[in-house]
Amino acid sequence: MSGTSAAVQLRTPDQRLAVRITESALAAEGVMDLPGFHSWFARRRAVDVAEVARIPFDALVGWGSEPGTGDLVHDSGGFFAVRGLSVEIPGAAVPSWTQPIISQPEIGILGILVKEFDGVLHCLMQAKNEPGNHNGVQLSPTVQATRSNYTRVHRGNPVPYVEYFQDTARHQVIADVLQSEQGAWFYHKRNRNIVVEVTEDVKLLDGFCWLTLGQLHGLLGGDDIVNMDSRTVLSCLPFSGADLATVFPLRPRSFGAAVIRSCSDEQGALHTTGEILSWITEAKARAVVRTRTVPLESVEHWHRTSHALSHETGKFFNVIGISVKAGHREITGWTQPVVEPVGVGINAFLVKRIDGVLHALVNARIQPGHLDVVELAPTVQATPGNYAVLPAAARPRFLTEILEADPARIRYDSLLSEEGGRFYHARNRYLVIEADEAYEPEDAADFRWLTLHQLVGLLRHSHYVNVEARSLIACAHSLVGRSDTA
Amino acid sequence: MSGTSAAVQLRTPDQRLAVRITESALAAEGVMDLPGFHSWFARRRAVDVAEVARIPFDALVGWGSEPGTGDLVHDSGGFFAVRGLSVEIPGAAVPSWTQPIISQPEIGILGILVKEFDGVLHCLMQAKNEPGNHNGVQLSPTVQATRSNYTRVHRGNPVPYVEYFQDTARHQVIADVLQSEQGAWFYHKRNRNIVVEVTEDVKLLDGFCWLTLGQLHGLLGGDDIVNMDSRTVLSCLPFSGADLATVFPLRPRSFGAAVIRSCSDEQGALHTTGEILSWITEAKARAVVRTRTVPLESVEHWHRTSHALSHETGKFFNVIGISVKAGHREITGWTQPVVEPVGVGINAFLVKRIDGVLHALVNARIQPGHLDVVELAPTVQATPGNYAVLPAAARPRFLTEILEADPARIRYDSLLSEEGGRFYHARNRYLVIEADEAYEPEDAADFRWLTLHQLVGLLRHSHYVNVEARSLIACAHSLVGRSDTA
Repeated sequence: MSGTSAAVQLRTPDQRLAVRITESALAAEGVMDLPGFHSWFARRRAVDVAEVARIPFDALVGWGSEPGTGDLVHDSGGFFAVRGLSVEIPGAAVPSWTQPIISQPEIGILGILVKEFDGVLHCLMQAKNEPGNHNGVQLSPTVQATRSNYTRVHRGNPVPYVEYFQDTARHQVIADVLQSEQGAWFYHKRNRNIVVEVTEDVKLLDGFCWLTLGQLHGLLGGDDIVNMDSRTVLSCLPFSGADLATVFPLRPRSFGAAVIRSCSDEQGALHTTGEILSWITEAKARAVVRTRTVPLESVEHWHRTSHALSHETGKFFNVIGISVKAGHREITGWTQPVVEPVGVGINAFLVKRIDGVLHALVNARIQPGHLDVVELAPTVQATPGNYAVLPAAARPRFLTEILEADPARIRYDSLLSEEGGRFYHARNRYLVIEADEAYEPEDAADFRWLTLHQLVGLLRHSHYVNVEARSLIACAHSLVGRSDTA
Repeated sequence: MSGTSAAVQLRTPDQRLAVRITESALAAEGVMDLPGFHSWFARRRAVDVAEVARIPFDALVGWGSEPGTGDLVHDSGGFFAVRGLSVEIPGAAVPSWTQPIISQPEIGILGILVKEFDGVLHCLMQAKNEPGNHNGVQLSPTVQATRSNYTRVHRGNPVPYVEYFQDTARHQVIADVLQSEQGAWFYHKRNRNIVVEVTEDVKLLDGFCWLTLGQLHGLLGGDDIVNMDSRTVLSCLPFSGADLATVFPLRPRSFGAAVIRSCSDEQGALHTTGEILSWITEAKARAVVRTRTVPLESVEHWHRTSHALSHETGKFFNVIGISVKAGHREITGWTQPVVEPVGVGINAFLVKRIDGVLHALVNARIQPGHLDVVELAPTVQATPGNYAVLPAAARPRFLTEILEADPARIRYDSLLSEEGGRFYHARNRYLVIEADEAYEPEDAADFRWLTLHQLVGLLRHSHYVNVEARSLIACAHSLVGRSDTA
């Protein structure tokens, strides 16, 4: 066909990958059985303990207020800083405000190593204690490291397994994408979400274990076991393929079958992906949002005591200082600022079956901390208590529908923690609630019904799906095996 | 299959679209024949004239230096501003500098309306004079309007046809994506690139004409006819489909056949798209680039006279003021600042056929004006004269290969203008040069060979392909009919 002879083999995408991911998702057992996991995990929780205490800002070691701004910064200039943010959104229910925000321009690594055992993909997970976790150890990705961590700015121990994610050439990269984190608390923060498959032997270090996706999905049903970093990486797995629904014929009217059809590209969707992209483009083009960092000491309606920087209403969140004494971290003790949210939030997807294919109702939402301003968020992403002090127009659409949902319609309901390295006891209730197929909301221009394969397609790229929605996508995928609902 | 009966029809992507686009690209004639176009276009050039003169900054009306910063701003606060930018790229050949930059946070519309005549898609193009065009009228998209334009901040005439792009619900959206513009001259500037197909009658206004893609591709072969805005919108057309190479069997060893195979998804590529995305993610994660706007009066090594703000070496670009007197614009006369590049730049793709499929060598390039810092650029994007005053290490990779290429290997070579609303006489030489299939450069970690269908896939999304590469993609697509090279 070509002018010269070609030794090169042109390549097309690996069609087997989605099938192998689904096989792992349907594998309820792996190299370690579930009782074995639970006793191992209980042991890790007993061994890997930390003593975390609130301390006054004055007692922070290596941290101080930057002269001229009052920003909370580390003496090295590294790690992160707490600065002020000014936000203007003309025409919004709250058209302007200032707030504290975490500034962390470095891009860290959230990486999961996967490997086949007995023909089934397993994920290498870490039992890890983060100081902000209310319950100590949770399941982390193989690697969860800031650039300061893995370049060892703070002279900690080397980060185990990080070499697999820094030099990927010898392995198969299954997913690799920069994703944003909480747009309400972080300014322009992104992490590299990466999944690498290896075929070589991998030494199993203390504190790590191999689990199938099906096992992880089971654990996602419990409260505060699978941490945020694991959830966001899992959501980026290419859990979507051309014929998953025919390769894995599940009980036709089960909820799990609606999930797998939603992961099957050829099943179609209510809107074409082109229409969805156009809707997102329109939302981004229309959004007029002006953000800029300002001195922390200039944020209005926030008051600083010896122990906390808090909003005058007591709502939203506090910035506090903590001290950590731990035996199992890179270094054995340190102090740092953290963000402590006030109240438990709700992150919920309304879903419905359309022609037997599950669709989730997503919201094109402005969040000032996002680099590209608008990302797709859950149907409801809110801390109900905050709305007591905000204008009525700010009350989230669909909050009532979620809070008053018929329990028989709840398909997923767990309390999950946000990142324990920056947030203190930050927990949200994650819900997947199935609406009747006939349900069609009015006045919902900023909402669209998307299939899971459409969301997974968007998750190959940055700037589309926020971290709260990514957690919910991982939760929705965890329901793929569910045969109990008709 | 579902629990309740579903009246809803789920939808899948329109497979016919790529075929219809290719049919239009292979249509050398349309509703207006080429001699007819040329006489119409000559008439437009004769009628739509503007008198453009350099004026001192003092003579700018409605523009002035902002107190405290010296930034060039409009009295209304609208349009755009010329500010200072501070850039730090630790480890780069030029690790830090300051420069003037155009700040234009508004997102404008670059829209092309398409419609079938006799079963062939035609594009509605506008003959439009922009003050920075060295030759007056060029071919613009149907709509080329800043937000200030189409919301009529400056009380100009309504923008014709803009309603098709503001309310897309009644029509088929073929492409719709925010794309960046020149990262060397613009800070975070993006425009909405949008193509809308209509089936209803469209009134043909004075100054507009319908052309097939094949006709536009022919005109792209001439110097300074098809303007930058048209080129970037054309590049975003979904010119990629599953079986284009079999639907349109061209002379197998022709260059045009290698182009159409490159547009055919199922032909495969040297690297999978997953590998390309991972390579881009790695480049973005590795890039440490700190940019911030600074007062224009603080930029170092730039000197301001009554008529120009220029670099002390006379290189790079000048900021100047111009006055415009025109009969055919929204308003009949105005003054404004513009950026005047020094010298003619080169934007070139090295391409080669791999197993008969055309691949272009793209560069993952840091440009400080881009919101997400790294975008894919041409193999070479450089103004050779500038490198006389820069460190040797800054000399672009492949510049020598391009400048010394065998003329027999040049597949495309035209002088094309950049946007005439912000840039004054900004021209670049666009080249597509075919390397031997055996050619494989060494030490080119920031470069990869991509097919056109991979680039078109990335162009559905923001933050991937810069405006110079987008122009070259439109130029490469224009070669699809070419049967003259073996």
